[in-house]
Amino acid sequence: MPARRAIPLLPRSLRVGEEQVKAYAELSGDYNPLHLDEDFARGTPHGARIAHGTLSLNLLWQSIAATYGDDAIAGCTLEVRFIKPVYLDDTVITRSADAEDADGTLAVSVENQRGETVISGRLRLAA
Amino acid sequence: MPARRAIPLLPRSLRVGEEQVKAYAELSGDYNPLHLDEDFARGTPHGARIAHGTLSLNLLWQSIAATYGDDAIAGCTLEVRFIKPVYLDDTVITRSADAEDADGTLAVSVENQRGETVISGRLRLAA
Repeated sequence: MPARRAIPLLPRSLRVGEEQVKAYAELSGDYNPLHLDEDFARGTPHGARIAHGTLSLNLLWQSIAATYGDDAIAGCTLEVRFIKPVYLDDTVITRSADAEDADGTLAVSVENQRGETVISGRLRLAA
Repeated sequence: MPARRAIPLLPRSLRVGEEQVKAYAELSGDYNPLHLDEDFARGTPHGARIAHGTLSLNLLWQSIAATYGDDAIAGCTLEVRFIKPVYLDDTVITRSADAEDADGTLAVSVENQRGETVISGRLRLAA
């Protein structure tokens, strides 16, 4: 039985604009034109620029840290699946179930402004 | 049976210096003094400043994208566990097993310069 009970995540939202994508490119060194060059992106199956997937993942972590405290990150397990891309100027928000499932994990997700899930995941706090 | 076979990750390394931690604080809005204020951090159980855990997680994603291509991120599942903190001026590097386990997942990790695992995880590519 886990020592801590998962509570719903405090939501965090982010508008993924030009500034965020450029800042993340500099930080990560990931200058893929799919993220940075509108003309290039138009010629790909995506049809438009998409944000680095990790920007939304980072938002989920911020939400976890805001809810449980920074120390909760140590030893906790997060499983994530990238479902849909996030396009430039989308706004994403973190979500969660109200309580843990029977297996002790909390369903968490990141949605876009159309209510579509872009990342789905399961969080298990450290025992 | 997965449509793609996991191959070993191309390693990526990062020295987590002042610059990276400041850039990530600005990007994420996470200005926790545990990451930014040496005096504050000295008074915590950590005893020194630690980097945002997501910096190492991002490095793991960069390694995955470099190995399988950006498109591999769509639909893939990553499970990660934060084992140890990363201290300022540590250098972290991504690692993986040579091949998938019987369950179709590839063991992946991030280690510090002392060979200690800071993040351990399992990657499953999209079918």
